[in-house]
Amino acid sequence: METGLQTELQKQAQLQKEAELQKNAGLQKEAGKKMSLLMFSGEYDKAMAGLILANAARDIEVEVTMFFAFWGLFLLRDPERMTQEDKTVYEKLLGWMSPKGAEDLPLSRMNFSGLGKWMLTEMIEDQEAPKLIHFLKGARKKTVKFYGCRLSLEIMGIRPEELIPELEVVDAQTYLRDALASDVQLFI
Amino acid sequence: METGLQTELQKQAQLQKEAELQKNAGLQKEAGKKMSLLMFSGEYDKAMAGLILANAARDIEVEVTMFFAFWGLFLLRDPERMTQEDKTVYEKLLGWMSPKGAEDLPLSRMNFSGLGKWMLTEMIEDQEAPKLIHFLKGARKKTVKFYGCRLSLEIMGIRPEELIPELEVVDAQTYLRDALASDVQLFI
Amino acid sequence: METGLQTELQKQAQLQKEAELQKNAGLQKEAGKKMSLLMFSGEYDKAMAGLILANAARDIEVEVTMFFAFWGLFLLRDPERMTQEDKTVYEKLLGWMSPKGAEDLPLSRMNFSGLGKWMLTEMIEDQEAPKLIHFLKGARKKTVKFYGCRLSLEIMGIRPEELIPELEVVDAQTYLRDALASDVQLFI
Repeated sequence: METGLQTELQKQAQLQKEAELQKNAGLQKEAGKKMSLLMFSGEYDKAMAGLILANAARDIEVEVTMFFAFWGLFLLRDPERMTQEDKTVYEKLLGWMSPKGAEDLPLSRMNFSGLGKWMLTEMIEDQEAPKLIHFLKGARKKTVKFYGCRLSLEIMGIRPEELIPELEVVDAQTYLRDALASDVQLFI
Repeated sequence: METGLQTELQKQAQLQKEAELQKNAGLQKEAGKKMSLLMFSGEYDKAMAGLILANAARDIEVEVTMFFAFWGLFLLRDPERMTQEDKTVYEKLLGWMSPKGAEDLPLSRMNFSGLGKWMLTEMIEDQEAPKLIHFLKGARKKTVKFYGCRLSLEIMGIRPEELIPELEVVDAQTYLRDALASDVQLFI
Repeated sequence: METGLQTELQKQAQLQKEAELQKNAGLQKEAGKKMSLLMFSGEYDKAMAGLILANAARDIEVEVTMFFAFWGLFLLRDPERMTQEDKTVYEKLLGWMSPKGAEDLPLSRMNFSGLGKWMLTEMIEDQEAPKLIHFLKGARKKTVKFYGCRLSLEIMGIRPEELIPELEVVDAQTYLRDALASDVQLFI
């Protein structure tokens, strides 16, 4: 595991170096542009798509807002900060049955009770491509704006403290105003 | 049930009052802006997301068009206006097997043959949040524009008379022109 | 089969004639406008929605880019150009288990191991509406720009030679720049 972590860190360092090189080579920026992603589905592959786009956009200085609603919130769960205190039976049940953070998300297709998911992550490793959790770390480091849907949190009985600390809890109108001011909006 | 209905009406009245208050408090409008939602999936949670956005947008005077295609059309079914007359065997079969209006839609995830859906609606009630049907009523009252995809209606053998009366049946190009003139477009 | 093909060709010719007529009748163009579709899901009904929009957009001179990622790539597979050479076990497994081109895609809902899909395609034929493969042909003929996601191809072990020849393999940033310059962007 230790070695696995080191390999990951080396890989990250390598990626960062490549990014720097590209920058110096004069990668054309799109500063002043803005992208808004509504992260609804909470599936591994779709979360990957959203986070790859978010990282790629930040690399060319596009501002990025990710608004997490419904199942999308499971991506931001911190497994070490989960709590069952003061929750109703339904909220506890949902807490138990739902994914515990980014790497625990299922696939949107061919999941086969986790077998397909396992195979895909193996294929990602074979290509030495970063895993979902690394794209999430990248997005946090590159200052993507993280919004969480207040109504979804209330209905699902998830507390903001159970999610990543950057998350700002907002209502649908805050998302909308931000989306209206963006150049690209996607519902993922 | 009578009491349930009264509670709902009170809740709606309360929501409306709050909306008025916000208005008077000078809620910043986004008049002249436009949002276009392509409602494809016909799932309870995704329909909820679309309708919450539509209602929130109308509250700040954003124009909203919802274009319903394929499974999305099941959201607009009026259970009391369904008919099997002049339908082929396939059309009848699809009519029987598919959801009969908004509250009958399944979840996009964790539906568990309806158990997950039932749990979610219980959780919505626990929070005294409005149900899907109320968001649909809100959108109709707030004059969201309802478009239905002609080709989808034809293929699925659904007649416009079986859907809500506000629905205008249009082709893909009418949707496109409207979307091209919008500030936000989402495929839900 | 021969007759089926002829009927299809006649239908296509008919559609083309109708398109010409509409053009001459002065169908309002939207030249200079641009649409960007991110084709992620790889399901028959969603691919149909994307391709109908792409065709409709080209008919009014809107520029269209379709960026295929993850499952979306299965739509572009040419069953006659598939290969298992130089693939890992996982890549071969994925190749066997996944859809072999447009007409082999499953439905996003009510697929019922193919029964629902079969019923829907029968209903499409009853209406003499074109099948998915015809919309794909239409999009290719009408010069939709086909982009394929490099990272997805690498992870899934699909080679560009297995897909339609128009496909240009690009990275996420190329998609992003194109999307930022578009008037409509959808994630399908």
